Amino acid sequence: MQERRAGGGRGSAPSRMNPMVLPAGVYAPVPTPFDTQDTFDPLRFRVALARWVASPLAGLVVLGSNGEAPLVDEEESDGVIAVAREAIPPGRPLIVGTGRESTRATVAASRRAAALGADAVIVRTPGFFKSQMTSDVFVRHYTAVADASPVPVLLYNFTAVTGVNIGADAVARLAQHPNVVGIKESGGDVAQIAELVAAGGSAFRVFAGSSTSFYASLCVGAAGGILALGCVLPDACAALFDLVRQGAHHDARALQSRLVPLAQLLGNRYGVAGLKAALALVGCDVGPPRPPLVALDAHGRDAVERALRTFSHWPLLNEA
Amino acid sequence: MQERRAGGGRGSAPSRMNPMVLPAGVYAPVPTPFDTQDTFDPLRFRVALARWVASPLAGLVVLGSNGEAPLVDEEESDGVIAVAREAIPPGRPLIVGTGRESTRATVAASRRAAALGADAVIVRTPGFFKSQMTSDVFVRHYTAVADASPVPVLLYNFTAVTGVNIGADAVARLAQHPNVVGIKESGGDVAQIAELVAAGGSAFRVFAGSSTSFYASLCVGAAGGILALGCVLPDACAALFDLVRQGAHHDARALQSRLVPLAQLLGNRYGVAGLKAALALVGCDVGPPRPPLVALDAHGRDAVERALRTFSHWPLLNEA
Amino acid sequence: MQERRAGGGRGSAPSRMNPMVLPAGVYAPVPTPFDTQDTFDPLRFRVALARWVASPLAGLVVLGSNGEAPLVDEEESDGVIAVAREAIPPGRPLIVGTGRESTRATVAASRRAAALGADAVIVRTPGFFKSQMTSDVFVRHYTAVADASPVPVLLYNFTAVTGVNIGADAVARLAQHPNVVGIKESGGDVAQIAELVAAGGSAFRVFAGSSTSFYASLCVGAAGGILALGCVLPDACAALFDLVRQGAHHDARALQSRLVPLAQLLGNRYGVAGLKAALALVGCDVGPPRPPLVALDAHGRDAVERALRTFSHWPLLNEA
Amino acid sequence: MQERRAGGGRGSAPSRMNPMVLPAGVYAPVPTPFDTQDTFDPLRFRVALARWVASPLAGLVVLGSNGEAPLVDEEESDGVIAVAREAIPPGRPLIVGTGRESTRATVAASRRAAALGADAVIVRTPGFFKSQMTSDVFVRHYTAVADASPVPVLLYNFTAVTGVNIGADAVARLAQHPNVVGIKESGGDVAQIAELVAAGGSAFRVFAGSSTSFYASLCVGAAGGILALGCVLPDACAALFDLVRQGAHHDARALQSRLVPLAQLLGNRYGVAGLKAALALVGCDVGPPRPPLVALDAHGRDAVERALRTFSHWPLLNEA
Repeated sequence: MQERRAGGGRGSAPSRMNPMVLPAGVYAPVPTPFDTQDTFDPLRFRVALARWVASPLAGLVVLGSNGEAPLVDEEESDGVIAVAREAIPPGRPLIVGTGRESTRATVAASRRAAALGADAVIVRTPGFFKSQMTSDVFVRHYTAVADASPVPVLLYNFTAVTGVNIGADAVARLAQHPNVVGIKESGGDVAQIAELVAAGGSAFRVFAGSSTSFYASLCVGAAGGILALGCVLPDACAALFDLVRQGAHHDARALQSRLVPLAQLLGNRYGVAGLKAALALVGCDVGPPRPPLVALDAHGRDAVERALRTFSHWPLLNEA
Repeated sequence: MQERRAGGGRGSAPSRMNPMVLPAGVYAPVPTPFDTQDTFDPLRFRVALARWVASPLAGLVVLGSNGEAPLVDEEESDGVIAVAREAIPPGRPLIVGTGRESTRATVAASRRAAALGADAVIVRTPGFFKSQMTSDVFVRHYTAVADASPVPVLLYNFTAVTGVNIGADAVARLAQHPNVVGIKESGGDVAQIAELVAAGGSAFRVFAGSSTSFYASLCVGAAGGILALGCVLPDACAALFDLVRQGAHHDARALQSRLVPLAQLLGNRYGVAGLKAALALVGCDVGPPRPPLVALDAHGRDAVERALRTFSHWPLLNEA
Repeated sequence: MQERRAGGGRGSAPSRMNPMVLPAGVYAPVPTPFDTQDTFDPLRFRVALARWVASPLAGLVVLGSNGEAPLVDEEESDGVIAVAREAIPPGRPLIVGTGRESTRATVAASRRAAALGADAVIVRTPGFFKSQMTSDVFVRHYTAVADASPVPVLLYNFTAVTGVNIGADAVARLAQHPNVVGIKESGGDVAQIAELVAAGGSAFRVFAGSSTSFYASLCVGAAGGILALGCVLPDACAALFDLVRQGAHHDARALQSRLVPLAQLLGNRYGVAGLKAALALVGCDVGPPRPPLVALDAHGRDAVERALRTFSHWPLLNEA
Repeated sequence: MQERRAGGGRGSAPSRMNPMVLPAGVYAPVPTPFDTQDTFDPLRFRVALARWVASPLAGLVVLGSNGEAPLVDEEESDGVIAVAREAIPPGRPLIVGTGRESTRATVAASRRAAALGADAVIVRTPGFFKSQMTSDVFVRHYTAVADASPVPVLLYNFTAVTGVNIGADAVARLAQHPNVVGIKESGGDVAQIAELVAAGGSAFRVFAGSSTSFYASLCVGAAGGILALGCVLPDACAALFDLVRQGAHHDARALQSRLVPLAQLLGNRYGVAGLKAALALVGCDVGPPRPPLVALDAHGRDAVERALRTFSHWPLLNEA
């Protein structure tokens, strides 16, 4: 397959992307708003996007795990991308989650996303047939997707939900592909982040997906983060990134510590329901999660509110 | 929701199914044939279905895990169901896998399956957002699906691939719903099978999904099995079921022992690729699995062939 | 090593045990009584042993997991064995847990146990250095122990606490050793029990360690059980064994179902604390568990009492 | 219990240790040498200790996991401590592993270690009865040990081998005890290291146990490391610590990267066998591991040798 691509005979043959397309920094994996009828709500989405666009975020990701992608059908997905592209000015990267379980559906979703204006796609490892997901299978899958995708591809490893782990060996092989530009690693094992940084080489970007280990991930060479926390506290997350850039490790560490309690609530503890509740609390109503997910109960909202209060003197999202 | 249902005001209000709809016994979760262009192949499917229909299987399941359902899109799914319905005579149950991650998509898929002639639907637990999948969430999800489905619903628990486990407490609550008629439990923990038998009550059917513990599952009260092995050795699996019915435990145990090596290869070891290879070896060509899955290599085929050889004096699928 | 043993040059060379030494049936892995000063209490132990001896149990196991063996030092262990041997008449098997992490300490403990009158030893897999515990390591360890032990050796696999799993391949190799007579498998996966039965051959005895899957284990060929539940309800457990022997599967299944709730409480839920509380409730005071374990709280005792009440018409331990 | 201790009525009442007793930096958890007769070899131990004493290590740990503590009996343990104390000059901390499964045995081992000259003890969480190991149980266990120990206590969390995890809540409570001075956390999750740093407060020391994430652990506030790698490359590990102290993050990161391949081999991959082989390769013969552990095979030794070669220009242990 790679040979054909090398031949360049394909009209949409991908070329090595402009490195500016995905600058280092903090990206927000934004939620998909639904109304109370369980329908995608483009109006709420536009309002929320305007806030994120006005923040110091490096770019936005739609239809990731926090975008409830596995709960959104193909037609709705196209609507989400279209609304996002309209709201996000050119030059500000829009990354679209297009991972599906089959190679075929992933290729199709990536092509549609590119046609709708995505600057890059982020592709979660398939994981349903866990025992069959070898390094070779991952390399074949991602090579086919990267061959076919008109826009650059980010790998996406999220072992806690997929139950599979793409190894540094497979990542090293895939990093050779001109259309594979980086990876989002959502696990908290910073040694694995460091290993991916080493495996990928200098032009390959590793983004942390775990807000609780964002500072440590930057220390070991991550290019930035794709952080649920960035949806709620974009200024604080961007500030943490800048502090590390400037070598202000002491201040960075202190800021990371303060972010941890909220990060934990938006992570495994409450997930999307926590993220949507936190956004409502800072004045950005993106509605409830889609069933079977349920909105946070009063107890959970209290916990999120307490964690948010620590940041009252920071420019929260609602002040953007 | 249940109250409204009980009122019967809904046009498509489900009624307690005729208990004959899902007789006890062995069901085969059949594979979805693809051609070498990675396209659903209805012709191969018809040929294979004719063999299974001629076997002593109690019924067939399409679009389960062994049917590569997560790799098949919605439109293809409808095609698979239509071909199966045409091939399977009325009175022989056709069960269709309609589990999706969202409640909404699961309801939609169940309605379409019923419209296409499914006798029942089998609904895998959602599992992407693992940490949020509580008993209450499962009860709400399945109640909504059972309320909406025009045909009876089987729960489906497959912890090894979903990473979540529906507890006996949730199953006991769901078994009260008139449109929830049973569960397929794919784990090997027979004590859990026994617990589900007790939790479900007398009208609730527990089907084993693990061929290696089929005999033991029958001992503790399972109503039958939905077994990949049943696709390849329908007569042997049905014979095992009959032996237990007749109280011939000694012979049943001996037959189970002989089935284990092949069952292991078609299970976690090689999965769908193993099943498709085994079928090819008994003369039933259903093509390769869909990428990212890959066809079994020569080493794997040898292992499957050796395990099959033990059954050369049994009526294999190709002799049906 | 086996060759030397075969040569018989060693004074204590083990010979193939009399198969009557370990009859099929239900064994109780009895707790070690401590007083409130955290000291082994031989008096309480004698009283309790008299009850178990009077019951239909096939034999007793001391210093297993339920005997809190990892919390008992070497000198105390010798005391426990001596008291047990005195109380248990010859002909009634006394099995002693002698598994340690090092081969050397396991050999020493096995020799001491034999000298103190043990009829057999039961040896838990070492498991501290999990990643190094290969099949070869297990075979070498158990071969050394079986070579050295003057009495027959039972393997003991308890993955839930050790984190390692001895495979059927290693068991098959070890079953060839004349001094390895069987295995206790404490997991609930009945297919694994069946596999061990097949791997061990006809003279090898597989005992179930999980009370919740005891009936199913017997169905697939287990020779009996070594069951915490047998300490509390020896008559009921023995009756279940007899029912399966007689082919009364329907009654056996019903009895197993009734035993499950209590079995769950004495298993992973409350462990040794649950077992000691249950014994106190049936009139057999064996004191509290040893710290860091803590005695069951009121809530737990209520749960155990409720589960016990179902058996009030059975000869409980206190009526023995 | 703490009240009584505060009363100071006890002869050996522990007092808040001199903070100099456990300086920040790199500690080596040294192996226990055995001869080919499987006997502790004090001579080899003295030779090796002299090398470590001459290195820039902050201190030494004996009878940790790398010291094969679970394979060493109580009497041998005393011998190991006595030899180490004799070889290590006063002022250079000697920390002794005294964790046992029972509180009673842990207290006894800690008292004996202190009497033999230990400067502090390090106490692994009990973990055999996994399901019973709650935060309250850990707090009670460690409080009893810290009350009784004449020398300061380090907690020790090593989930990969114990299967249990002491939470930040329990650590925060225990950090209040004047005789609990820190924790060794052996997991690779740097966010957990950061959480422990926050939970423990300023006087509490968190030591990393995972060499692959040592640099990242220091970034998030660890006081140092107790690293198997420190036995083999004490200079390189100490240099990494110093680089972070000096804010030379770029160089620190580069050094950490170079250490990873060897760190992985000495970690989960080959464990103690890898450590002993690496030491032999740098001229420090500490004999084979104790059975059931086995010495590294030729393939493993080659891998270790290749990883060591990268450091040929560093002062290796044998050049100390």
